[in-house]
Formats: sequence, structure tokens, C-alpha cells
Amino acid sequence: MKKLLVTEVALRDGSHVVGHQFTKEQVRNVTKQLSAAGVPYIEVTHGDGLGGSSLQYGFSKEYDIELVKEAVKVAGNSTIAVLLLPGIGTIEDLKKAYDAGARMVRVATHVTEADVSKQHIETAKTMGMETVGFLMMAHSAPPEVVLEQAKLMESYGADVVYVTDSAGAMLPSDVTARISLLKAHLSVDIGFHAHNNLSLAVANTLAAIEAGANRIDGSVCCLGAGAGNTQTEVLVGVLERLGYETGIDLYKMLDLADDVRTNLLPAPQDITSGSFIMGYAGVYSSFLRHAVLASEKFGVDARDILVELGKRKVVGGQEDMIIEVAQQMAEKRVRVS
Amino acid sequence: MKKLLVTEVALRDGSHVVGHQFTKEQVRNVTKQLSAAGVPYIEVTHGDGLGGSSLQYGFSKEYDIELVKEAVKVAGNSTIAVLLLPGIGTIEDLKKAYDAGARMVRVATHVTEADVSKQHIETAKTMGMETVGFLMMAHSAPPEVVLEQAKLMESYGADVVYVTDSAGAMLPSDVTARISLLKAHLSVDIGFHAHNNLSLAVANTLAAIEAGANRIDGSVCCLGAGAGNTQTEVLVGVLERLGYETGIDLYKMLDLADDVRTNLLPAPQDITSGSFIMGYAGVYSSFLRHAVLASEKFGVDARDILVELGKRKVVGGQEDMIIEVAQQMAEKRVRVS
Repeated sequence: MKKLLVTEVALRDGSHVVGHQFTKEQVRNVTKQLSAAGVPYIEVTHGDGLGGSSLQYGFSKEYDIELVKEAVKVAGNSTIAVLLLPGIGTIEDLKKAYDAGARMVRVATHVTEADVSKQHIETAKTMGMETVGFLMMAHSAPPEVVLEQAKLMESYGADVVYVTDSAGAMLPSDVTARISLLKAHLSVDIGFHAHNNLSLAVANTLAAIEAGANRIDGSVCCLGAGAGNTQTEVLVGVLERLGYETGIDLYKMLDLADDVRTNLLPAPQDITSGSFIMGYAGVYSSFLRHAVLASEKFGVDARDILVELGKRKVVGGQEDMIIEVAQQMAEKRVRVS
Repeated sequence: MKKLLVTEVALRDGSHVVGHQFTKEQVRNVTKQLSAAGVPYIEVTHGDGLGGSSLQYGFSKEYDIELVKEAVKVAGNSTIAVLLLPGIGTIEDLKKAYDAGARMVRVATHVTEADVSKQHIETAKTMGMETVGFLMMAHSAPPEVVLEQAKLMESYGADVVYVTDSAGAMLPSDVTARISLLKAHLSVDIGFHAHNNLSLAVANTLAAIEAGANRIDGSVCCLGAGAGNTQTEVLVGVLERLGYETGIDLYKMLDLADDVRTNLLPAPQDITSGSFIMGYAGVYSSFLRHAVLASEKFGVDARDILVELGKRKVVGGQEDMIIEVAQQMAEKRVRVS
């Protein structure tokens, strides 16, 4: 029976859903139940990683290092993990997270920029942390490029490399192509992180496992950016039916889901037209608001703007491209008509 | 490019979600937009089919034959379909639906009881209706049995046979096994109807198409029993990315989804612990309420009751088995402790 290691991301990716307003009590309550259910890794950080609390990304209610401390208190046998995006978070932040008790770090870069993770991965390894290289927006690069970048992370010392479908844009065949290539050429563990924008998070996770991934991300009640992530409690049940071993107690996860639904979830996370179109276009969910504004200003369908941005493979931080694209589309339309 | 024919079921399976309270205006509004988007078939009936309006299944706000008439008025090039479960609906109901303008009927039976559909399928064909045999709870019978039953429906004259995952219990491999066997041995079209209880509705639909199905069901905003059906607007986008032709305008479907979300949906249809467990156990969503009551009475976990019911392959109408199972489990526990 194949063993899988699940990382629960509701207390990090789910931070986007609650506007980064998690309280210490909420973090303790959820962590305690996750630990009791046997979830091996629990990620606790601002949605955009360590140092994410800012004007640009949204201020946290509680400094995330404090939330890590709270989680560690009740984590039991579970490992508390943090997310670090070099450029947003620093080595200094990482050290603070370690001091707070985090023992795994996921160092995340855009899929073509693994080289910026070198110093952070090396430092984390020196500190004795389990270290994950996290290649975001992995749909936007061909499998060979993902492999080349994953090899860089492996060479820096990462224990695991993740293929991360940040925009929820992948189809199962996209997942299989990337994971199987990594599995064939890397000796470290391979992970997969999904978003549900095309209603394929569970299916893509199954495709990843079949292709060789043994590290997978889930989020209770789908709590995560866009349409949310792979719903942990559903995934655990499906994996059980397929004969995989996660070590997670299904009923305890379902009880936690009921608690989260009642006491934490602002609204059920289904797939809205907005979150669907982000997956369809293959762009970050943070682009939607800007595209809607540009749509109103230039009289161009927001969906067409997003699809065009996806074709141009825009990355986080390039929000100014949205205006440019909308303007060009409006001008083109005038010339045609 | 493979062509697929979509049947939109929100105005039938979605009837469960609104307690069968669809108004004439709602039906006209949704039908009009579905037709404008190019959806070829639109099913309009009480959630439990013609004649479903009753104390047992819930009274409709509007008699569904009247709703069919309203839909037909604005259906344009789309065909209005009705669902008929022999035993709930009658030949007389079918004639009324035909007179109201319905031109497709889906005759639904439990997966092992296709023989009860003979008279209804034959009558529908005599009346000149496009006729679908709809094998419900198809997860609960092995592929060879599904084939044998599908052959019966084909022999009665059905133009299409559907594999129907009523409980949302199938994994993609379950779908592939059933659809590919039917495809190999039948000459009529093969269809697939999914529920999203295991978060696999879109993935299962893709598996069905790959195995040879060319008729598929979708529901805008997932509007349907349990965790809802395959979300039509998401499916249309995914199929477009995969190069399949549905003839459906994606943006018009997304606009309709926005409208339904704002004006019709009581609450977003995500996967609750309750709807998940129905798919996990493989039982009808109508069993949940009874299982919770039995759970309280006998002090047995409702989830264990449902899983046991699934093992015993209970069917609709056997709700009294729930008490029996709960009682046996409570007694067994007493003996053990």
C-alpha cells in the first residue's frame, strides 16, 4: 500500500479567504484537530508567505510568527510548516519561524525562477529544517522547463520539490506530464499542490499520485485562494477507497470540516464564474479584481482580458500589464469596427 | 473534433435544491438563456420525475407539465426533455408531457430493473419522442450487469442509454469500466450523468467521454441533489480546452451561472460532510436525514449506518432498512462491550 504525506494548507492558503484575519484561537483549534486526525504537516503562514502582511498583500490580524507559535503548542506529532516567497519573506523571517517551532519550510518561486531560492533552501537545510522547493504557476512552463527548475532546487538541497498549480489551470494530462518527468529524473520526493478552479483538484491530485508524487496538499472545506484547493476530507476518503495510506482519520477530518464550515468559513467555496475564468485563463486569482476595473474603464470583456493575460504568461506583480492589455484590446476593436 | 451532446439538468435535478419550488418565470428565464447559449437538451421535471409532486417526494410549487409548457415557449432550437421513473410517473403523464411540447424522455430505473422500462420506452418511441434509458445507481452493479440491463433498454427501442451515478459514488476507473463495456457492445449512443459528492463529477465525465460516451449531463452552478451535478459552465470550458465540440457558448453559460447564483441558488453548492459521506457510502442523498435520526435514537454514528447501507446496496424506497441497520449496530456494540 503506497504511503502518502499530506500537508494541510487551510491555515496558509485559506488565509486569503478570510482576508488574513485568522485569530490565535482559530489557529489553535484547527491545528489541534488536524493533529488529532493524524495530518503530518500543517502549514501556518500569511497567504503570501512569511512577511506577507503588508499594504500590498493585506495586513494579517496576527503576526504569522505568533500564529506559528500557537500552532506549535498544540501540534503534537504534526510538523508545523511555513511558506516563504523570496522577495516577500527574508532569511531573517525564516529564522524567526524556526525559533517559533516551524520545522518545515516551503520555499516558493515562480516556475521559471528557481534560482532565487538557492540561499533560502541552503539556509533552511543548515538550520536542520525539512525543505521543500515549491514551483508556482507550473502550468505556464512546459514539462522540460519544470524539470530543469526542479533540478536546481534539488541541487540546492531541497528534500522535496512541488509542482504547484497556483491558478488551478491544469488538466490531468498536464499534471501527469510534469510529475512523471520529475519522477524519472529526480531522486527527491515529488509533491503536488492543486486549486479547484476547473473542478479538477481531486482528479489532478490522483493523476499526480499515479505519476509518482507522494506529497500532496489538501485544504479542509477547500479553504484557499480562487476556488480553493483540494478538499482534504474528500481526498482522504477517495484515497482510502483507492487503497492509499495517508494515516489520516477520515471521520475526524469530517468533524473538523463541520467545525470549520460553522465557525470559520465566510461562505462555502464553490466555483464561481470568476474563479473558473482564472483557471481557464491560467492567471492568479488576484488579477480578477484588476481585470474587472479595466473592463469597466475600457469597455472590454474582463474574461477576454484575463484570457489574453494568460496567453502572455503574466506573473504576480505584473498587474500593470492588465491596463496595457485592456487598452490594446479596446484600440484594436475600434480599428476593426 | 468529437461532438458531444449536453443535457442541462438544473431545472430537474436542481428541483431538489429548491424544494421543488421552481416558478414559471424562473423556468422561462433559465431555459431562454440555455437555448441562447446553444444547449441542445434541457430537462424540466420535478426532481423525482413526472408525477413526483407528492407527499412522499415533496410537492411542486407548479405542476411540472405547466413548467414544461413554459420552457417550450422559449426553447428555440433546444429540445425540452422530461424524466420519468416508472412507478412514480405513468404513461398518462408522459402523454401529457408530449402534448406540452416535450420531445425527449429519459426513462429511469434502478440499474438492475431495466425491465420495468419496457412499456414506457416503447410508448415514447411510438409517440415519436427521442428516448433515453437511464440506469440509476449504476455504481452498485458490476459492469457486466450494467451491460445486460443496458441491452434490455436498447432492445426496447431506446436511442440512448445512460450510466447514472446517482449517489456520486464512482471513481474514474468505475466509469471507464462501465462506459467502455457498453460502448463495445451497444450500437446506441451512450450517456453519463454524474454527481459531485467525491469532487469527481468533471473528472468522471471526462473519463466517460474518453471511454466512448457522447451524451453528457451538466447542471449550471452544480444545481442538483447531494453535492450537485457536473457544473455545466466549468465542463464546457474544460471540454473546449480539450478540443471537444459542444456547440455551447462558454461566456453565455457563465452569464447564466452568475444570474442563477444571484437569483435562484439558495446557497452555493459545495461538498459538505453530509454530501461527501453519501458518495463515500454510495447511497441516495435522501437517506442522510433518516440516518441522522436513527443515529440519535440508537447512539450509532450516522456515517457508519450509511456505509453499512451502502454495503447492503439499499435502493430508493428502502428507508425502513435504516432503522434496522442502526438497531443491529447498536445491539452488536452492546454485545462486544
